[in-house]
Amino acid sequence: MIVVMSKDSTPEQLAVVESRIENRPGLSPQVFQGIERVVVGVLGSIPPDLGDEMALLPGVMEVVRISKPYKMASREFHPDNSIVMIGDVAVGGPDPVVMAGPCSVEDEEQMVSTAQAVKASGAKVLRGGAFKPRTSPYSFRGMGLDGLKLLNLAKQETGLPIITEVMTPGDVDTVARYSDVLQVGARNMQNYNLLDAVGETRMPVMVKRGLAASYEEWLLAAEYVMAGGNTNVILCERGIRSFESFTRFTMDVAAIPVIKRLSHLPIVGDPSHSTGHWYLVTPVALSAIAAGAHGLLIEVHPNPDLAKCDGPQSLTFENFDLLMNQVRAVNSSLSSVPVAAS
Amino acid sequence: MIVVMSKDSTPEQLAVVESRIENRPGLSPQVFQGIERVVVGVLGSIPPDLGDEMALLPGVMEVVRISKPYKMASREFHPDNSIVMIGDVAVGGPDPVVMAGPCSVEDEEQMVSTAQAVKASGAKVLRGGAFKPRTSPYSFRGMGLDGLKLLNLAKQETGLPIITEVMTPGDVDTVARYSDVLQVGARNMQNYNLLDAVGETRMPVMVKRGLAASYEEWLLAAEYVMAGGNTNVILCERGIRSFESFTRFTMDVAAIPVIKRLSHLPIVGDPSHSTGHWYLVTPVALSAIAAGAHGLLIEVHPNPDLAKCDGPQSLTFENFDLLMNQVRAVNSSLSSVPVAAS
Amino acid sequence: MIVVMSKDSTPEQLAVVESRIENRPGLSPQVFQGIERVVVGVLGSIPPDLGDEMALLPGVMEVVRISKPYKMASREFHPDNSIVMIGDVAVGGPDPVVMAGPCSVEDEEQMVSTAQAVKASGAKVLRGGAFKPRTSPYSFRGMGLDGLKLLNLAKQETGLPIITEVMTPGDVDTVARYSDVLQVGARNMQNYNLLDAVGETRMPVMVKRGLAASYEEWLLAAEYVMAGGNTNVILCERGIRSFESFTRFTMDVAAIPVIKRLSHLPIVGDPSHSTGHWYLVTPVALSAIAAGAHGLLIEVHPNPDLAKCDGPQSLTFENFDLLMNQVRAVNSSLSSVPVAAS
Amino acid sequence: MIVVMSKDSTPEQLAVVESRIENRPGLSPQVFQGIERVVVGVLGSIPPDLGDEMALLPGVMEVVRISKPYKMASREFHPDNSIVMIGDVAVGGPDPVVMAGPCSVEDEEQMVSTAQAVKASGAKVLRGGAFKPRTSPYSFRGMGLDGLKLLNLAKQETGLPIITEVMTPGDVDTVARYSDVLQVGARNMQNYNLLDAVGETRMPVMVKRGLAASYEEWLLAAEYVMAGGNTNVILCERGIRSFESFTRFTMDVAAIPVIKRLSHLPIVGDPSHSTGHWYLVTPVALSAIAAGAHGLLIEVHPNPDLAKCDGPQSLTFENFDLLMNQVRAVNSSLSSVPVAAS
Repeated sequence: MIVVMSKDSTPEQLAVVESRIENRPGLSPQVFQGIERVVVGVLGSIPPDLGDEMALLPGVMEVVRISKPYKMASREFHPDNSIVMIGDVAVGGPDPVVMAGPCSVEDEEQMVSTAQAVKASGAKVLRGGAFKPRTSPYSFRGMGLDGLKLLNLAKQETGLPIITEVMTPGDVDTVARYSDVLQVGARNMQNYNLLDAVGETRMPVMVKRGLAASYEEWLLAAEYVMAGGNTNVILCERGIRSFESFTRFTMDVAAIPVIKRLSHLPIVGDPSHSTGHWYLVTPVALSAIAAGAHGLLIEVHPNPDLAKCDGPQSLTFENFDLLMNQVRAVNSSLSSVPVAAS
Repeated sequence: MIVVMSKDSTPEQLAVVESRIENRPGLSPQVFQGIERVVVGVLGSIPPDLGDEMALLPGVMEVVRISKPYKMASREFHPDNSIVMIGDVAVGGPDPVVMAGPCSVEDEEQMVSTAQAVKASGAKVLRGGAFKPRTSPYSFRGMGLDGLKLLNLAKQETGLPIITEVMTPGDVDTVARYSDVLQVGARNMQNYNLLDAVGETRMPVMVKRGLAASYEEWLLAAEYVMAGGNTNVILCERGIRSFESFTRFTMDVAAIPVIKRLSHLPIVGDPSHSTGHWYLVTPVALSAIAAGAHGLLIEVHPNPDLAKCDGPQSLTFENFDLLMNQVRAVNSSLSSVPVAAS
Repeated sequence: MIVVMSKDSTPEQLAVVESRIENRPGLSPQVFQGIERVVVGVLGSIPPDLGDEMALLPGVMEVVRISKPYKMASREFHPDNSIVMIGDVAVGGPDPVVMAGPCSVEDEEQMVSTAQAVKASGAKVLRGGAFKPRTSPYSFRGMGLDGLKLLNLAKQETGLPIITEVMTPGDVDTVARYSDVLQVGARNMQNYNLLDAVGETRMPVMVKRGLAASYEEWLLAAEYVMAGGNTNVILCERGIRSFESFTRFTMDVAAIPVIKRLSHLPIVGDPSHSTGHWYLVTPVALSAIAAGAHGLLIEVHPNPDLAKCDGPQSLTFENFDLLMNQVRAVNSSLSSVPVAAS
Repeated sequence: MIVVMSKDSTPEQLAVVESRIENRPGLSPQVFQGIERVVVGVLGSIPPDLGDEMALLPGVMEVVRISKPYKMASREFHPDNSIVMIGDVAVGGPDPVVMAGPCSVEDEEQMVSTAQAVKASGAKVLRGGAFKPRTSPYSFRGMGLDGLKLLNLAKQETGLPIITEVMTPGDVDTVARYSDVLQVGARNMQNYNLLDAVGETRMPVMVKRGLAASYEEWLLAAEYVMAGGNTNVILCERGIRSFESFTRFTMDVAAIPVIKRLSHLPIVGDPSHSTGHWYLVTPVALSAIAAGAHGLLIEVHPNPDLAKCDGPQSLTFENFDLLMNQVRAVNSSLSSVPVAAS
């Protein structure tokens, strides 16, 4: 941390800054006398509240934080890519993992037929919502435990492991019993009690990016889970809120290479939620793969127009199959040519 | 709801749209033949998923929703202003209610002295966080139950009712026992299990606007609480996330008159969180009052530079006292002149 | 400027950083050896491109700019408030200056009657668009020179000085001849040729904030005008683009106290464009005044529903008169009580 | 256009709406009596200001626009893809066109060596700025006419046609004489005089998306150029402004398939400006190609750390060559598999 004194600060004010730093165990100040200004470097492991304290001291113009606030999620801490195993499916390696299925579990026929179809096309994980976060209290909010049981029926039929959302700490045990990956939704990315609760399990957890979350806040959400002892974290870019309202959200495709630079955790893309329109899902899915995503989350439904949730952004079986062909083609093209170092 | 057919849609496609509408209990279609296009009005009470179904039918160009998705929170439903009582303090009436106190409860001396100071200056409700949502898992996360007890000590000393945040359904009973208003924080505005849980109480609930929540989503969060049977909802504008990063968030002051037009619920402003800088709190507080806010939420601390949380946006006792004088002056100026009808 | 070296940077990399700084005339490096890192301070007047150069050198982790990129517009450069005179109307002093009139000049009757009405209610400057920036090429784009002449007719009748928009360098001379303040619109805030051109005049220039402009970019737009030798700059907050689309833009009311802190230039608010709805204009106007604005820009039209432009956000004469009463009441309330130092 | 009356509107109010519509030449109202509400359809070609007029009439709750405000730019108007020829290079066809070169022209050696390098790697158009829009008046603002001459020297050496920015109507003739594509920069996307001026030429014009421009506003900017008679318009997605500040802007990759759906005009992507970091350029470039972009705009410099402008986002010759290999690989992979209809 660097504390920048204002031009007209006094030696007494500088002394207060120094003594406040010295008062903290393990920290020491180092003064740097410029021509125009004095700058104080803080040596040692910076506590999170020091910046606020410094910023309020008289004579201080600005406080500049240098080290990142997340540790375990950072690539500095863990230079190699992490691989998160979902059963025997590796997320974070060279092959992108596609997780597909309906927005919400509706009935046995829907789940089993979808599971079989997406497996046949190459999906490795089955998605489906049993507990659904809905903007309106009057929308269909999911089948709950019955939905989890139907997901498991589809798993028995196909062998596909399951990813499903858990919305509240009280449901973590139940959802964990019936699934292979716990999904923390975008609206819960800063539901810290939920992050703590999934951090106490040792299951894979997918942390979707909040609608208005910066990269740093997102990695700090992952850090919550990891600080609980669970390092099996997968990140998911699912679109941020911008001024553009034609698409449901704005897919921030650059998030993929940025996260890969800042962190060792795997990152997947969700073209269904980010766009909100089925006809945009394939091009945006391919863009995520081309940008280096470790996988995709895709909504698929036997009859999108009759879906109880998110029909407009769901693919038919046929279109999902075409998408998978293209994903494979783009992914193999990427590995066919050498890549610039960065 | 209005379904707009595309120019080149066929009579068969129109027939499908009509029959799908007729299949829904209580709905009927009414066809409107324009020169360029056909438009179908849907008569009856529209289910939330109808729009998605219609949008996916062949030949449909656009679906236009007319009625608002929230009911109990809307002014149409309840034309007069609602007054929410916090003990004997009325929120929603002509006198703005100021709720003040520290970001987080730290110790007895801090809480009692702050409660006495803010009461002396005219605050009617004491705020203070015992369960703190923090972006980093390594920041101070609040004193929990011990903090709630210190809040109650300060209440005994001053008689001020208490507002404090509840972060998760499992804590609702405890927090309800030790407080007078349950606060749902911005990051939890779409934590639907929490909204359900506070909706089951009959206590006043303050729903802060999410960082990226539209007016409609915010009113739907209030609707969740009201749908549970709890109509004691207060809304709080606390700044939205924009591209501007000098301020912590962007205070959307127009939200105040907009919400008063769309809804009957009281709305207060939070200049502390929205700006993040103590020197901006007073002008932004006054702007909220001038725009018609029913109250304010203000962070006050005996020694902001030593606060464990949000020091840079906390006012000293002295500056809070000056702020209260100005709030009273601006508020009484508003009632001294006639207002345009709207 | 401070150059932060990465933890694993080498002495050779540090030497390159130092020599690059020494190569620049007037600059010198000062090395600061921390325990974890090395930091290099740059002494002297920093050229704008140095940061980019440093950021790309091997071993450099981050470059931190300390001084602000605008000079003449900064309060450091000019500690006292600037007053900009429009004829004998002072903008930047204790009395807020209201500039009112129609979005676009339409005919003599409209302009003269509006000028008389707004003057009677207390407006000090007449606004009206002759050259209109319109999102669609098929909308009414203004009367041009004929509009300027009608504005001057209204000025002759009422004595009110005129503010009107200039859209392109080639029109600056003409618009300057027929007006008292040159307005640079939000969409032209980074039209640098236009800023240069108005900077060559010595007339008052109002620089509206761009839809997506940060405070710094906005002050740099003012700096363009001032760098041309014209210090008569007024800033205008007119709403930024956010995700909320109920209002036309989002009035960033905190911009008013922020700009007053960073700069000495006067700042006014535009509640008409920021909200887009006439029924929001008065509360948002009052919020701007309460936040310390030096004035307001208000759209007024004899018959808003027949206006050729921006009818929905225009006030009738009657509502404008009520607004002016409230503006005076709020403004005088502010000066009736002592204010906190900041 | 559909005018929705409020529930409590009167027959007299409805009659006024009808008569106002009938007063407009070529328009007629068609009333649709629902159970809850009355809705009025407007038949005929809707003038741009009708919506505002209707919205202000008593009894009107909402006005819903159905047809799009742009015509010539829309795919409805021109169902097949448009191909824009730059010399003999076709933009809009199956092969993506890469336009590469430095941010700003600096000297002969830099321009000629860069032109030769990017040509050797497969670029088809040379970019380089002679008139530079810079946020600060104190930054290097380009070589002007001398820069244009150096661009032409590089063209003579390599045969590559030239794209360069024009900032103001007064420069259009000069820039047109020395270049093959006129670029309208993001900050000038709503500089309507400039759009008019380039619309009067018959040269290819690239319209970059404004930082805060919606798809509709962007297409209306294209419409300005086309309304002047110049249909040779290329669109460029170069990142929008969001709350995320790690990247310079947020690349809205979904814009590519959206624009291809709404419009027949070619669209290219600019990964250099959108990301601001050279190490993000390749993954984001590939994402644009995978999403269906007709080309790319890439900044390349012989020595990025010594560039006078935008060094941090410029590629070296070597990294550009690697990027081109990958672009070709991804592009050919896309055409190797069948695509879903949309």
